[in-house]
Amino acid sequence: MDVGFLGLGAMGRPMALNLIKAGHRVRVWNRSRATADALIANGATAAATPHDAFGAEAAISMLADDAATRSVILDSGVLNAAPSGLVHVNMATISVACSRALADAHRERGIAYVAAPVFGRPDAAAAASLHIVAAGPVAAIDRVQPLFDVLGQKTWRVGDDAPRANVMKIAGNFLIACAIEAMSESAALAHAHGLAPRDLFEMLTSTLFASPIYKNYSALIVDQRFEPAGFALRLGLKDTRLALAAGEDVQVPLPFGSVLRDNFLDAIAHGDAERDWTAVAKVALRRAGRGASG
Amino acid sequence: MDVGFLGLGAMGRPMALNLIKAGHRVRVWNRSRATADALIANGATAAATPHDAFGAEAAISMLADDAATRSVILDSGVLNAAPSGLVHVNMATISVACSRALADAHRERGIAYVAAPVFGRPDAAAAASLHIVAAGPVAAIDRVQPLFDVLGQKTWRVGDDAPRANVMKIAGNFLIACAIEAMSESAALAHAHGLAPRDLFEMLTSTLFASPIYKNYSALIVDQRFEPAGFALRLGLKDTRLALAAGEDVQVPLPFGSVLRDNFLDAIAHGDAERDWTAVAKVALRRAGRGASG
Amino acid sequence: MDVGFLGLGAMGRPMALNLIKAGHRVRVWNRSRATADALIANGATAAATPHDAFGAEAAISMLADDAATRSVILDSGVLNAAPSGLVHVNMATISVACSRALADAHRERGIAYVAAPVFGRPDAAAAASLHIVAAGPVAAIDRVQPLFDVLGQKTWRVGDDAPRANVMKIAGNFLIACAIEAMSESAALAHAHGLAPRDLFEMLTSTLFASPIYKNYSALIVDQRFEPAGFALRLGLKDTRLALAAGEDVQVPLPFGSVLRDNFLDAIAHGDAERDWTAVAKVALRRAGRGASG
Amino acid sequence: MDVGFLGLGAMGRPMALNLIKAGHRVRVWNRSRATADALIANGATAAATPHDAFGAEAAISMLADDAATRSVILDSGVLNAAPSGLVHVNMATISVACSRALADAHRERGIAYVAAPVFGRPDAAAAASLHIVAAGPVAAIDRVQPLFDVLGQKTWRVGDDAPRANVMKIAGNFLIACAIEAMSESAALAHAHGLAPRDLFEMLTSTLFASPIYKNYSALIVDQRFEPAGFALRLGLKDTRLALAAGEDVQVPLPFGSVLRDNFLDAIAHGDAERDWTAVAKVALRRAGRGASG
Repeated sequence: MDVGFLGLGAMGRPMALNLIKAGHRVRVWNRSRATADALIANGATAAATPHDAFGAEAAISMLADDAATRSVILDSGVLNAAPSGLVHVNMATISVACSRALADAHRERGIAYVAAPVFGRPDAAAAASLHIVAAGPVAAIDRVQPLFDVLGQKTWRVGDDAPRANVMKIAGNFLIACAIEAMSESAALAHAHGLAPRDLFEMLTSTLFASPIYKNYSALIVDQRFEPAGFALRLGLKDTRLALAAGEDVQVPLPFGSVLRDNFLDAIAHGDAERDWTAVAKVALRRAGRGASG
Repeated sequence: MDVGFLGLGAMGRPMALNLIKAGHRVRVWNRSRATADALIANGATAAATPHDAFGAEAAISMLADDAATRSVILDSGVLNAAPSGLVHVNMATISVACSRALADAHRERGIAYVAAPVFGRPDAAAAASLHIVAAGPVAAIDRVQPLFDVLGQKTWRVGDDAPRANVMKIAGNFLIACAIEAMSESAALAHAHGLAPRDLFEMLTSTLFASPIYKNYSALIVDQRFEPAGFALRLGLKDTRLALAAGEDVQVPLPFGSVLRDNFLDAIAHGDAERDWTAVAKVALRRAGRGASG
Repeated sequence: MDVGFLGLGAMGRPMALNLIKAGHRVRVWNRSRATADALIANGATAAATPHDAFGAEAAISMLADDAATRSVILDSGVLNAAPSGLVHVNMATISVACSRALADAHRERGIAYVAAPVFGRPDAAAAASLHIVAAGPVAAIDRVQPLFDVLGQKTWRVGDDAPRANVMKIAGNFLIACAIEAMSESAALAHAHGLAPRDLFEMLTSTLFASPIYKNYSALIVDQRFEPAGFALRLGLKDTRLALAAGEDVQVPLPFGSVLRDNFLDAIAHGDAERDWTAVAKVALRRAGRGASG
Repeated sequence: MDVGFLGLGAMGRPMALNLIKAGHRVRVWNRSRATADALIANGATAAATPHDAFGAEAAISMLADDAATRSVILDSGVLNAAPSGLVHVNMATISVACSRALADAHRERGIAYVAAPVFGRPDAAAAASLHIVAAGPVAAIDRVQPLFDVLGQKTWRVGDDAPRANVMKIAGNFLIACAIEAMSESAALAHAHGLAPRDLFEMLTSTLFASPIYKNYSALIVDQRFEPAGFALRLGLKDTRLALAAGEDVQVPLPFGSVLRDNFLDAIAHGDAERDWTAVAKVALRRAGRGASG
């Protein structure tokens, strides 16, 4: 399939490469051209502009955030010139409001829009083991399903209203952040009482909480292994903001989200913006007067 | 082994019965005698007083809370008359401070004290599949290990300072309560955006959150199936209080715990004290103005 | 003085009128022309465009929010054509970040910018009893001080960095919102214990809390007199957002602000967006299961 | 009048002294006799036991907390031997539940019980400028009103159900603690944006917040003058606990109270238990990464 790919960051690069390897004709566009060159060396074609990238059967965008997405997709006018048969798949984590604005703009111009954010880090993107959550018109998703099959291990369809896929991604990341904070508070409580957090989590993640999130993240917290960052803490704050904003859109208070926001800010104020988001565990320890050892 | 068993509530009854079935000689005591009779019919001996129950090789207490434990074990004077070889195992969920007071009182009188709270509901107690967290003098735990082997599927030893086992139980329940609240807020957010909570949790509990707690509790939340209560919400508030109190003991703020406390109170104020503690999910929906459908 | 006045809402109208009455030559601009006509009937001149309003010795903007301010002042290009001697005074409540953007844009174009938000409601604007908080270059403030003397009872100067005045306005409104929430929780606590909130506040606002905010707002809470709105609750949420955003700009967690945000959302979800912001008191009562009587 | 006075702490001493100066015959009891001696030197009589102190026309108790009050008044049996005409006035800050237990115990024994907690610090006690909040049977309050007239500047009667006076005291202190936290967060926000907290509060406490609490406490926060403590921070935590407990009694969530609790714990974990409770302002600064300068 002819595929335009916009946004070659830590996630976008391995995803685009997997498409190339699977035999698709991929034209890549990135704000800084240098990043694109590596992919071009691997068989991609250069798209000089976002318009070029959108001149395909499918266009996949994986841009950094709302601002980049609005700028490249909405403000640039690419939708005005896009071929009518194009399916645009936005796989980045953006706000529900931004996804709604995209859905509206595509509908006005008669272009198919699919929201398909992913769960998984860059290593999962490289291994094509992402979980893809897709929403949008069934026919459009059907057309790009072969691409999803290349990129991920499973596609979870959640209806034809595209922004719902973004709600699911945001709710999922919110649930992860809550688990991290809950483990952080538990670990501080245990530590202060002389119980090794390692003992606490060894038992719990073997039984009630025997899931990847609890196993993996509790290990990072126990070992205070916050570098290199699997997911930077400042992105954790960004995603918490997305959850709070999604709540505001529909008047849903999220008191756990409010605590997360305060604690991520506290962590960033103490220099941990680029550390792994599990470094928020230092906040609970520090507030308990046990920061030095933590 | 000659075993005294004090406290024949929903947990104590099946536990005592399992000891009897395994061939131990069990003398039972309960505040209301009627409850003891069923066990006596099954082979237990009646202990007329707590003192009688303590006249054994091991005494297991499974009383309702701090107040009952203090009254029956500390204020009654049973420790003064207990045989010097006795090992007292308290398996109830009590505060760290109360466990500390028990540890001190036993030490003064030269009696072995083991704290061994359990994870598992009455059905797990009946099936002898409890997880037992034990702390106390190694020799004492060794002596009662055969009893633990009858009562549970695994014993997790966390050192010789008994109250640490209580810290672990309290931290574990705190972690569960946090998971429930996080799911509740996520479900309210999804619902308000038109995403079925069922879809949200089907994906997440198959992947990142594939653990018993998330699978079982999300199902209750999705189905709004809060009766019969597996664990009553008022006990959830009680356990949250234990976590907050344990935090106060050592100056550990628990902001998630504070949110839990407020929300459990909100739930109780709306008549849900005796429903399952997942009924706290109604709070998030109600605050979002979606209480009628919830 | 020749004054351009942009934004004739509930605050802007009486302010512009006071300038006219004091003999200044006022050219008014408003997004909807109809609103301007009443002032023109009172002696104002019509400014056909924002550019016209900026062709004066001073321009005062009192637009609804960040979006309106950015659109009319920054995106429109008025600053490019403004006379070099102009002093632009923005008196609206906007974000610190927006005020910073304005300060930067003015500096680039060599135009004086003064931030001068006000404390006081429309009746205080009409009575010229506003408190004005001004920051910006001293010379520029000196030039518009005669206008401030007409509009308010006192000008509080807080330095030459304009956005600081916005910080002060935002912090002041935050402090008011906190006082409202604190009174709301206290009133719910008293009510539930059979103590009349009226008795509680009569004593406290005669003694420790003998200040306008506590006296006036506690009366509204006691009487549940939430209409007509002195200040609409949805604006209370907007201002809380400004405080939280100002905190995020510089990594300052505001846990009270987080509670306010959640509770204002709860109130709006229950239909109180247009009621007075003291209607947040209904949230505390409702959560305590006493909403019917409240 | 013959008056027994129990509890000669920082508040009790000057209060008892004022009664003596006004000509009342005061018999004093204190757990440590040494403290009583100074008052005896000033004209008081020694009460050897609480029973002796209760053998009067009126007994005033001003003991440290719930535990001391329960121990001296309830567990000691003084009520059994008290003369039937006695009016017992408890002026200490105790929990609503403890006051309720006292009310019940007095009723059973036919002894009049008045709860009359006070607002004011030791200097106000010495100056007899306390505000006294009294609840209990009207006839009983009438009889001790002459004592109140000696001890305070005004008595605020809030009905015949004694514990309501305690609710009012607890709600009042809660309102003060909320004001301190709100000022702390505002000051941190201002400071981080380069606005001097002094400027912020000079304006606000001259206008909207022109009340003793805001004027006095903001000055302490601005000057970081936390010693000597006017009211120790650990007592602030104790009173916050009383508010939270009063909320739990009647299912009233107090989210601001939850934040206060967490922040007071944070402050105590950092060594500020004995500093003035305004030292909680250091928490907001420290969390914002600005602790060194604070």
